[in-house]
Amino acid sequence: MKNFIYDRTIHFRDTDAAGVVYFANVLAICHEAYETSLVASGIDLKSFFTGNVAVPITSAKIDFFKPMFCGDHLKVLLDSNLISADSFEIKYQIFFDGESQRAIAIAETKHTCIDSIIRKRISLSPQLLQWIKFNQ
Amino acid sequence: MKNFIYDRTIHFRDTDAAGVVYFANVLAICHEAYETSLVASGIDLKSFFTGNVAVPITSAKIDFFKPMFCGDHLKVLLDSNLISADSFEIKYQIFFDGESQRAIAIAETKHTCIDSIIRKRISLSPQLLQWIKFNQ
Amino acid sequence: MKNFIYDRTIHFRDTDAAGVVYFANVLAICHEAYETSLVASGIDLKSFFTGNVAVPITSAKIDFFKPMFCGDHLKVLLDSNLISADSFEIKYQIFFDGESQRAIAIAETKHTCIDSIIRKRISLSPQLLQWIKFNQ
Amino acid sequence: MKNFIYDRTIHFRDTDAAGVVYFANVLAICHEAYETSLVASGIDLKSFFTGNVAVPITSAKIDFFKPMFCGDHLKVLLDSNLISADSFEIKYQIFFDGESQRAIAIAETKHTCIDSIIRKRISLSPQLLQWIKFNQ
Repeated sequence: MKNFIYDRTIHFRDTDAAGVVYFANVLAICHEAYETSLVASGIDLKSFFTGNVAVPITSAKIDFFKPMFCGDHLKVLLDSNLISADSFEIKYQIFFDGESQRAIAIAETKHTCIDSIIRKRISLSPQLLQWIKFNQ
Repeated sequence: MKNFIYDRTIHFRDTDAAGVVYFANVLAICHEAYETSLVASGIDLKSFFTGNVAVPITSAKIDFFKPMFCGDHLKVLLDSNLISADSFEIKYQIFFDGESQRAIAIAETKHTCIDSIIRKRISLSPQLLQWIKFNQ
Repeated sequence: MKNFIYDRTIHFRDTDAAGVVYFANVLAICHEAYETSLVASGIDLKSFFTGNVAVPITSAKIDFFKPMFCGDHLKVLLDSNLISADSFEIKYQIFFDGESQRAIAIAETKHTCIDSIIRKRISLSPQLLQWIKFNQ
Repeated sequence: MKNFIYDRTIHFRDTDAAGVVYFANVLAICHEAYETSLVASGIDLKSFFTGNVAVPITSAKIDFFKPMFCGDHLKVLLDSNLISADSFEIKYQIFFDGESQRAIAIAETKHTCIDSIIRKRISLSPQLLQWIKFNQ
């Protein structure tokens, strides 16, 4: 098992008036890690996210253990697993850069492959199966 | 049990290039419902979110059953429950306006009350306990 | 001349770690006012923003006179003007609710109508011309 | 004159249902370039954005020449200029990576230094003056 790793600095826009990162933005950062891992396996993002085949998120969850501040350097570790012929899950572990002992947040997203026109389930493409194999 | 109800129209900014609402933005819409319910119970948002007492979200989860499009009218039903002296949870059910039979998404957030300076747990304020009672 | 008025409360998500609204989010709030005025004139947002005719923003500007905080109630006044057969501008004035003497921000967006497939300029639809007349 | 350069890939979250980047998000990307240039000159972002000295944006403007899609690689060139003892402006030019002939967008932000408690103008710090000199 080899995790994909995404490096991310916390931007000012990610924060809120409590001075820390707004909770839902951490899920958006996880999604950036997912996109970056897709690119790393040779997938073209523009066609991936706007084509007739879509893999919408059917559920997401996240646990927060420490607050994140503007300028913090994060490492997001990602691994993906096949759930069924038409669905997969991604697990994310977020660390402060240089502190790989204790995750500051962990998250999970589930994705189902559909025909985006008729919105019916279809099997994952060979390209996505290869990406899952690459990151599991 | 009486749910707080928040009305929300999907904005263009909420959507992404797949043509539907970006997943993490639905949690942000749930948080708007939470804020609106705080105001309804007499809480001042500015001091609530920037004072020395904070109630950060420690976990969040969401399940999606139907896609949401720009212009869609939503009803977000919210109810809150005490977990312990220093924590509570909020459950959200999202419906298309006029279709109250089938939720299009359900979500949950857990919140823990802390002293935001020393970041240690403290008991929920009487004001928040009243808000929980009001929405449970 | 009659302005369209959009009421908006500042959400926690709109703010940043400086404790006030993040600058670019005020332009997003102006865009919400634009969307709401389109709906008020009978335009369906979902087809408007995803059809083969698009009216992308070609320029935007904004001046800020006072900071906005979470929970603040705003009134956004909007008026639109035809620039040419294929373009229009919108002017926005933002006030604190109940303080209509001094704007806290003013903004402007310019929009050009295009065929979104070939991305060439085309004339504004009768529907948009009617909306402009309605809000100028 | 030497421009600071910020590399940025367009994320899915940056886009909207028209399939391209949501206009206000391009200003947020410009702000990321600003933050990254501050770090490059030795400024600590966390204290910079939450201290008693703030440099809020007083105006912003942007012109768009080409649409940006999910996955596009951008180069943001930034240069800063002193306006007065307490204010400066930043100019941004955005290019597609590898196409440095024609900007796809240009933007400008103006910033005024204030005491964030009493919200009165104060002179720019030596640290910020050095950053301006570095990027002009």
